[in-house]
Amino acid sequence: MHVSVHDVTVGQFSRGLTNLKGVLQKGRAFAESKKIDFSVLLQTRLAPDQFPLARQIQIACDVAKVCCATLSGLPAPAMEDKEQTFEEFMERIDRTLAFLQTIKAEQFTSFEKRTFTSHRRPGLHLEGRDYLHQHATPNFYFHVTTAYSILRASGVELGKRDYLGDPSWKQD
Amino acid sequence: MHVSVHDVTVGQFSRGLTNLKGVLQKGRAFAESKKIDFSVLLQTRLAPDQFPLARQIQIACDVAKVCCATLSGLPAPAMEDKEQTFEEFMERIDRTLAFLQTIKAEQFTSFEKRTFTSHRRPGLHLEGRDYLHQHATPNFYFHVTTAYSILRASGVELGKRDYLGDPSWKQD
Repeated sequence: MHVSVHDVTVGQFSRGLTNLKGVLQKGRAFAESKKIDFSVLLQTRLAPDQFPLARQIQIACDVAKVCCATLSGLPAPAMEDKEQTFEEFMERIDRTLAFLQTIKAEQFTSFEKRTFTSHRRPGLHLEGRDYLHQHATPNFYFHVTTAYSILRASGVELGKRDYLGDPSWKQD
Repeated sequence: MHVSVHDVTVGQFSRGLTNLKGVLQKGRAFAESKKIDFSVLLQTRLAPDQFPLARQIQIACDVAKVCCATLSGLPAPAMEDKEQTFEEFMERIDRTLAFLQTIKAEQFTSFEKRTFTSHRRPGLHLEGRDYLHQHATPNFYFHVTTAYSILRASGVELGKRDYLGDPSWKQD
């Protein structure tokens, strides 16, 4: 009654980011049909004191990258948060996906002994398992869902299937 | 390099639902301070064709309940979607949490052989592992995040800590 850390991290994050690409593609098609610059959507927020779409995409990528790097002990590739265009955000996601694909299941062997630290919580750390369940996983889905919601609230025709992608349904 | 299905389901869903209770409590305090009936917030949506807060709460509970019941083979307690008040929604969450607490780790022994079916996909099923990673987990966080976002977009003072709750930070 166990699942592999690779499935929970690389597997789930790769699916979520791939689905996010599809959501953003619908956002771009919507912007084009309305003759809106895509950057308008990138700067749209659900609340004035919450991050706009651009930052939601960057953080979703970072949570996936940092979680997989932290729990595997691999270095995380640096990314500069300089994206401005649709293409640059897609490339950010693709670079994150490419990093995830380099990680093999056995590289998570010592995940329980690895720890996560945050500049927001000096002097503290989360143990690997707690970090995965209590922080990285809910945080990843928070930012992917918020990116979806910003576009949906802006009028983009999105449904749950865009968010979930295409699960592996099998014939009965 | 494995984690238990109990931690991934009962553990994560229980934390997410408990944090959702805190988010709703802030929503109620906000409504009271503005002299708004809480039912106004329960009927608020991010988009006209998306479910309002009330339904987001019910679905978050149902995803947690159905996932744990499906993967453990236990019957899911029936819940009628009749809630109207803040107290009734909190009770719905508490009943869901109480069901989750009855499930022991070893009851997930056969989770890989269990399958999920949906009336929306007749003739199809998801295998236990695919259901967990591709459907139940992302779907649960979708509805918890959307409930949070509806309140945040309505003006409730919420931050990421309300969503993540209080992870088990340890002293270095």
